[in-house]
Amino acid sequence: MKRATTERIGKLPVARRVGDLRRSIAGWRRAGETVALVPTMGALHAGHLALVTRARELCDRAVASIFVNPAQFGPNEDFARYPRDEAGDAAKLVQARCDLLYAPAVEEIYPPGFSTTVTAGAIAEGLCGRFRPGHFAGVATIVTKLLVEAQADVACFGEKDYQQLQVIRRVAHDLDIPVRIEGVATVREADGLALSSRNAYLTPEERVIAPALQRTLRDVARRIESGETGIDTAVEAGLAELARAGFTKIDYLEACDADTLAPLTRPDRPGRILAAAWLGRTRLIDNVPVPQQR
Amino acid sequence: MKRATTERIGKLPVARRVGDLRRSIAGWRRAGETVALVPTMGALHAGHLALVTRARELCDRAVASIFVNPAQFGPNEDFARYPRDEAGDAAKLVQARCDLLYAPAVEEIYPPGFSTTVTAGAIAEGLCGRFRPGHFAGVATIVTKLLVEAQADVACFGEKDYQQLQVIRRVAHDLDIPVRIEGVATVREADGLALSSRNAYLTPEERVIAPALQRTLRDVARRIESGETGIDTAVEAGLAELARAGFTKIDYLEACDADTLAPLTRPDRPGRILAAAWLGRTRLIDNVPVPQQR
Repeated sequence: MKRATTERIGKLPVARRVGDLRRSIAGWRRAGETVALVPTMGALHAGHLALVTRARELCDRAVASIFVNPAQFGPNEDFARYPRDEAGDAAKLVQARCDLLYAPAVEEIYPPGFSTTVTAGAIAEGLCGRFRPGHFAGVATIVTKLLVEAQADVACFGEKDYQQLQVIRRVAHDLDIPVRIEGVATVREADGLALSSRNAYLTPEERVIAPALQRTLRDVARRIESGETGIDTAVEAGLAELARAGFTKIDYLEACDADTLAPLTRPDRPGRILAAAWLGRTRLIDNVPVPQQR
Repeated sequence: MKRATTERIGKLPVARRVGDLRRSIAGWRRAGETVALVPTMGALHAGHLALVTRARELCDRAVASIFVNPAQFGPNEDFARYPRDEAGDAAKLVQARCDLLYAPAVEEIYPPGFSTTVTAGAIAEGLCGRFRPGHFAGVATIVTKLLVEAQADVACFGEKDYQQLQVIRRVAHDLDIPVRIEGVATVREADGLALSSRNAYLTPEERVIAPALQRTLRDVARRIESGETGIDTAVEAGLAELARAGFTKIDYLEACDADTLAPLTRPDRPGRILAAAWLGRTRLIDNVPVPQQR
């Protein structure tokens, strides 16, 4: 047997190639160990580390991947300025008891001639899919690759990117990829703002406004849950609330079926309130469940 | 361990569910055996059996799948009348030393809510892709599913469907599916007609004309290889030859790069001459290499 990768950043072993990743994982499997994968784009915060912690609860080994996937950024999006800090990320992963970092170069993932796309259908077309054409095809394609490459028992994704989570569930299920997709609750700042690598873009003034996103979503969920207003009225009130709070552009605020993301039509069915709104150059997304405790 | 499937048709074990397929294959893997998959749509002829024979040469175990995939038929195509004969197919597979038949129902492959699509990009857009919109997306999606389901070491496909073979190579490579895609030479009747389940549709009069398809492709390849004419002239002569032979409609006859299927621009590079042409209601396809011996 060829030895698994020996590159390390600090104490963390790093695989740069699919073959290195597979050799490490195959070694664990031979020892009877289970493996969880945590796909990320780096710039790790406590939300990512909660995924690694959950991975380690569910499996003997946790592999985190860091790949800033050009295919899921639009031409006018923030691919170039997306924060990158591999050494800092590696130190955090060691703390969270991650066993291996998979950090391939773009050419390892998309070699010359690459042309395959995975699309998830209707579930990827509304909400963020409407405002970021091609985004979820980029996500579905890279995640399919990572899941097939790692053949992990479990893969953990944050509920913060709820539509992404449902797209990945759909694709993994439809393609019969033998993996359990685990959604992990959003980690938030004390004032309710969902952790996001993009929060770093916010000016101090914008940072003060930002928590209104989650507050508004909770208000909408509460109104629907209590029956205080109908679904449409609650959503309308939420849109007005976001504008009043100082969001400079609102892509959407919608009440959706929690599984299919189709429009929520009955207040007594599991739902999800999702929104995307801008503060200057920064686009924030968030979501909450209806009912609020489930 | 749950026992593998026990349904049999004659002597051939049959798996109807993904889980049954995986249990059988997992059992072989534990015994250290390698596994080859032969995806088919049934109506098996000697061309399919050559795939099974090749599968058994390359691996300890051969699994054939039979699934008439609705997603790869257009609305006006022959899905409903496509020939089906599971008992006859099973008897042939036993003769070819197939170890297991995977024959799932449509609902097993496409359960309610299924919505994922795999597309291969440019390689699927020309040739048959131009005349059968959605066909190769249907092929790429079902083959991705079958490859992920079976996790075989090798999967065998006929060169008769050459564009399909290249699409599958592209997708399996791009998605890092750990399988070797094996192309197997076309099996032909004594008069050169490529075996195809659709040959059964031909009237006796059409059957007499049909071998002209392969003869024409060989002529085009010979002209290009010898330098007797340029590539374009050779293709033009081939188109005229098909019309003269009695084909009622010609979808295309093209000289392509053997790997990418882009237009062949140099006669000294590995090429493939491909055509699709109709005899009445029946669409025939065939292809030959340039140079003719490789």
